[in-house]
Amino acid sequence: MVSTHWLACLPLGRRGQVPHGANLLDAARSLGVELESICGGRQTCGKCQIIVEEGYFPKHDLTSTAAHLSPVGEHASAHPLPGRRLACACVVAGDLLITVPEESQARKQIITKTAGERVISIQPAVRQVYLEIPAATLEAEGGRGDWERLQAGLVGEWQLAGLRPDPLMLPTLQAALRDRRAVLPADRRGLTVTIWNDSEVLRVQPGYAEGVYGLAVDVGSTTVAAHLCDLRTGAVVATEAMMNPQLRYGEDLMSRVSYAMLEPQGVARLHRAIIQAVNDLARKAADRAGLASSDVLDIVLVGNPVMHHLLLGIDPVELGGSPFALAVAGPLDLKARDLGLKLHPAARVHLLPCIAGHVGADNLAVQLAEAPHLQDERLLVVDVGTNAEIVLGNRRQVYCASSPTGPAFEGAQITHGQRAAPGAIERVRIDPLTLLPRCRLIGADDWLDPDHPEARAPLATGICGSGIIEGVAEMYLAGIIDADGRFAEAAASRSPRVRFPERTGEYVLVPAGASATGRDIVITQSDVRAVQLAKAALYAGVKLLLARAGYAQVDRVVLAGSFGATISPFHAMVLGLIPDCALDRVTAVGNAAGDGARIALLNSEQRREAARLAHWVQHVQTALADDFQAEFVAALALPHARDAFPHLADRLPARPASEIRHSRRRRAALADQP
Amino acid sequence: MVSTHWLACLPLGRRGQVPHGANLLDAARSLGVELESICGGRQTCGKCQIIVEEGYFPKHDLTSTAAHLSPVGEHASAHPLPGRRLACACVVAGDLLITVPEESQARKQIITKTAGERVISIQPAVRQVYLEIPAATLEAEGGRGDWERLQAGLVGEWQLAGLRPDPLMLPTLQAALRDRRAVLPADRRGLTVTIWNDSEVLRVQPGYAEGVYGLAVDVGSTTVAAHLCDLRTGAVVATEAMMNPQLRYGEDLMSRVSYAMLEPQGVARLHRAIIQAVNDLARKAADRAGLASSDVLDIVLVGNPVMHHLLLGIDPVELGGSPFALAVAGPLDLKARDLGLKLHPAARVHLLPCIAGHVGADNLAVQLAEAPHLQDERLLVVDVGTNAEIVLGNRRQVYCASSPTGPAFEGAQITHGQRAAPGAIERVRIDPLTLLPRCRLIGADDWLDPDHPEARAPLATGICGSGIIEGVAEMYLAGIIDADGRFAEAAASRSPRVRFPERTGEYVLVPAGASATGRDIVITQSDVRAVQLAKAALYAGVKLLLARAGYAQVDRVVLAGSFGATISPFHAMVLGLIPDCALDRVTAVGNAAGDGARIALLNSEQRREAARLAHWVQHVQTALADDFQAEFVAALALPHARDAFPHLADRLPARPASEIRHSRRRRAALADQP
Repeated sequence: MVSTHWLACLPLGRRGQVPHGANLLDAARSLGVELESICGGRQTCGKCQIIVEEGYFPKHDLTSTAAHLSPVGEHASAHPLPGRRLACACVVAGDLLITVPEESQARKQIITKTAGERVISIQPAVRQVYLEIPAATLEAEGGRGDWERLQAGLVGEWQLAGLRPDPLMLPTLQAALRDRRAVLPADRRGLTVTIWNDSEVLRVQPGYAEGVYGLAVDVGSTTVAAHLCDLRTGAVVATEAMMNPQLRYGEDLMSRVSYAMLEPQGVARLHRAIIQAVNDLARKAADRAGLASSDVLDIVLVGNPVMHHLLLGIDPVELGGSPFALAVAGPLDLKARDLGLKLHPAARVHLLPCIAGHVGADNLAVQLAEAPHLQDERLLVVDVGTNAEIVLGNRRQVYCASSPTGPAFEGAQITHGQRAAPGAIERVRIDPLTLLPRCRLIGADDWLDPDHPEARAPLATGICGSGIIEGVAEMYLAGIIDADGRFAEAAASRSPRVRFPERTGEYVLVPAGASATGRDIVITQSDVRAVQLAKAALYAGVKLLLARAGYAQVDRVVLAGSFGATISPFHAMVLGLIPDCALDRVTAVGNAAGDGARIALLNSEQRREAARLAHWVQHVQTALADDFQAEFVAALALPHARDAFPHLADRLPARPASEIRHSRRRRAALADQP
Repeated sequence: MVSTHWLACLPLGRRGQVPHGANLLDAARSLGVELESICGGRQTCGKCQIIVEEGYFPKHDLTSTAAHLSPVGEHASAHPLPGRRLACACVVAGDLLITVPEESQARKQIITKTAGERVISIQPAVRQVYLEIPAATLEAEGGRGDWERLQAGLVGEWQLAGLRPDPLMLPTLQAALRDRRAVLPADRRGLTVTIWNDSEVLRVQPGYAEGVYGLAVDVGSTTVAAHLCDLRTGAVVATEAMMNPQLRYGEDLMSRVSYAMLEPQGVARLHRAIIQAVNDLARKAADRAGLASSDVLDIVLVGNPVMHHLLLGIDPVELGGSPFALAVAGPLDLKARDLGLKLHPAARVHLLPCIAGHVGADNLAVQLAEAPHLQDERLLVVDVGTNAEIVLGNRRQVYCASSPTGPAFEGAQITHGQRAAPGAIERVRIDPLTLLPRCRLIGADDWLDPDHPEARAPLATGICGSGIIEGVAEMYLAGIIDADGRFAEAAASRSPRVRFPERTGEYVLVPAGASATGRDIVITQSDVRAVQLAKAALYAGVKLLLARAGYAQVDRVVLAGSFGATISPFHAMVLGLIPDCALDRVTAVGNAAGDGARIALLNSEQRREAARLAHWVQHVQTALADDFQAEFVAALALPHARDAFPHLADRLPARPASEIRHSRRRRAALADQP
């Protein structure tokens, strides 16, 4: 009979009896404590470090458990940190209490920066394992090739059965086996194998190797953003964004659908343009992290249905009219190369599902990131892009919609608008008395004082999404524009910053001297109109969802989008982007769709969760709802903030009553304007 | 209670009771009689034709069964042949006796032209089904796209669950649904779907469509041959062959392995060359059949291990030396596009397994074609190419080997050698008295009389494999060469056709006047040497296998190869290609490896059979066998036919005893020559 010892593992608290002489890595696993290991217990990867604790043990008192382990070995090729041991190099010789540090846990958890500070368990679809196989010999082998011996090794060492080879991996296998890094004593060969979904071998590397990366890409109509992640640790190692190059074929989705319909090579051009953009982002992000595109073995793509279809090379024409039929809705697991993506030759691609003809994978990504379906609170999430993704609900039911806001919130279709990039104005404050602005630029530490260029501040290049939102909201608060969004003629007499060239108003945010373009950077009447149209579309969508859900109000609001800076909840509320809510219940996060893509990249269970959600959530067709148009018209004016937002009342300036009446009269007229 | 009727189906003889009012297609299927149907019983495809019989029925006497069926309908869009009915358009109204003609059977059988006249059941990996699905609607659909509705239809109508889409099919789906051929009443859509292995959708076509083709390719070191097959009927609709373009990088396998090792881009060049060749063959074969390459949805590739690896882009260097390790041995199911094949964009490719480092998928294909493992007779199969594939055995055990014969038997490395193509001399007879030859050209109906060019015979372009074998054998029988293969000086005095320019002999097969090249077409001393070396390698391999199997003799011999014409067993035996056997037990077939590839193309069960065989057969390493070299040397001379082949004795001329003694002395000297 084999004698046993007690083993307890902190911080999970798992404990049980393990045989005397057991390898500590195996012993911990037998208690359900998953320690990370790439090398399979060969003391090579150094991932299974543990701390041997002293002190109280729940059954015995242990003054020192150190003696209950085999002594520190001399031949380990990986060295643990001081005070730690490699579990795979330890033999259990007595009762033990150990701590498994965060970084040694197999399913590490990382915390996203989203509103709820969600915990993501790192469980990627693509992972590496190390194993050793015998070299080929002439004797027998029953006709097996090197691949078949590798398959047998994966079954024997990692219980991975039935793996298939990517055909482009096969030509690299024998070179890896020949490499001197693979050669081991006793005619054995060591290989590190990169595996997708425990079912396909994507890559073999000679000897022990580390490093497997993935790309999470939010393909917006206007902005494409990519996070390059270390798939083992979950860390974001680089982020890159660029304008969607399809913009040259049409600003909004409908004009791109038209382009696809009318131009003979339209679909192919749009497809190639977006694939090229993703390739460029992959290369730049890899460069920035000291890697190559070929280090990327997995990619998750999210986007609205039109982007989703164009990524696949599918003509989006059916999405342009009723019944808005998706060619394919479900999740797709494909080869990146089949889409023209230039990553690792065997890289995989995953597309999250679409929900309906107007509600795409990006909306699902927002749901993964903010997870209203896991919460009791009634949560409203708006992820603002050229289309706003709107999600409302809690664990009982979640409603979702997409609303065509146009690209104004991403700095497009704005006179001096630009993508969120260094030099763009991302923050604006306007003194309500002097009407002088202060701006902050992306990449600058301090607020820019454009009237003192001698401060050697960086020059402003334009205005990004968050800048235009804050700018218009501040102009309203300062009385430069009225509730209809019209420039107040009286304001021109208060400051030369407000002027009326050709009879329409504009406000000088940055004078030519502090501008990189050498021209005044202004917000014009048409810019204000663009913001009004965008926010009206967003707000009308929100109202529709509130009505469908039967909510009078919400418990919490999450504001997301690729504006540049995270948007100021106060200014969003002043503009009327979101319904009234206590300001401390409004959280501004970054790009929620991008975060959702990252979650799907790092955790394959979340991909399955997304597929379940796609069937469960209720989607609302904004385009068909009878009340959408009415809500849209009603939402065009800027809200009379003290009335509409009691929660803001104490932070808002008093407004002249005359102006409010004035604006009420003109609301209908404005609604008729384009 | 539903009343039932007796139904009996000829020629299978299945019978049983079926419900009154049952559809005859369903009723026959319920008795296990698989009738073909693409349209799923919609009277569209016309494939399920049956003949209603009159006469004796095993239980009742039926004078006429015609009245026991529903009357002929008026709305069938497919019309059966006279005297036939469409089973799917018939309702059972009484006892019935029907005949299912061969062409209506679901698993049609075709007979290959191989030695055993094997019956192949048509059970291809790729097939078409027709189905109808509802058009997209705005209402609900639970977020399903057109692909998901197609999936649901495939489950509902064909019990095909869990199908995945080829990503390149997806962009074609909505266009097919929009096509007027797909539009049906009641807002339904009809599609014909092409499916691989009941698991992947490769193609969708609007409405009812017919036609799915596959290519079976034998990739030899010297010759590449392709059969284009109708996957529904099994018919070969075109055959094309060409020289392997890799020849420019090396005549034999070892020189190509060297090229791959020494040239930096060597592997890539060899890979591209062979893929380009397969693409060319596919295009030419499709052209000839009035089709396009894109009509090809499945391809089976067989070849020796070096060809197999180069098709996959794998460096064959490990196959060039001990332990001759295959990178991958097992069967592979891949996407044709991943190898660079230009067929249908979604086409599949299947590679039969390799058996060992020297014994490849082509050997397995030979085994599939001739099936010694299913026979009681001890069968010897030699498929002669640049490597001879040798298979020996019966159902108890099969042994196999590959022997490096060189390309002489395919017309390469022969002074006026050429590939088997129109104009090539494929048959040769030499009058032993006058030493005048008669030749037959590929593509010509009659034997060419080269001394009477006024007969307007076609001009000879060169000598193909079967021509060189018969030519050398006839020269030996006529006494032009002796048993050592040396030109007999005495023969020159008997005919001007035998001459000794520069002191080495040559024989004029076709004079310049009847030659397309305008030069004499001759067989030279070095050509005779090349044939001797080739046949010695082949015979030594055969001897090794006989020794390993412990056979003193065999019951039957199958001679295969891409010689041009099927080789004459008599001449093969005169040359000593095969051991002694009664001539009527020697069968000459075409390219057995190509036939095996065709079998694997038409029957996916045979692909699994090949995988089982790969593990079961015993392979013999010719290169390592101590006795191979000795057998090779012993086999260099031409056999003294009367002694070696008692079965031929009555057909052979008497030979001068002096010549035989003379040659015996010189045999050792010849063995030292290259």
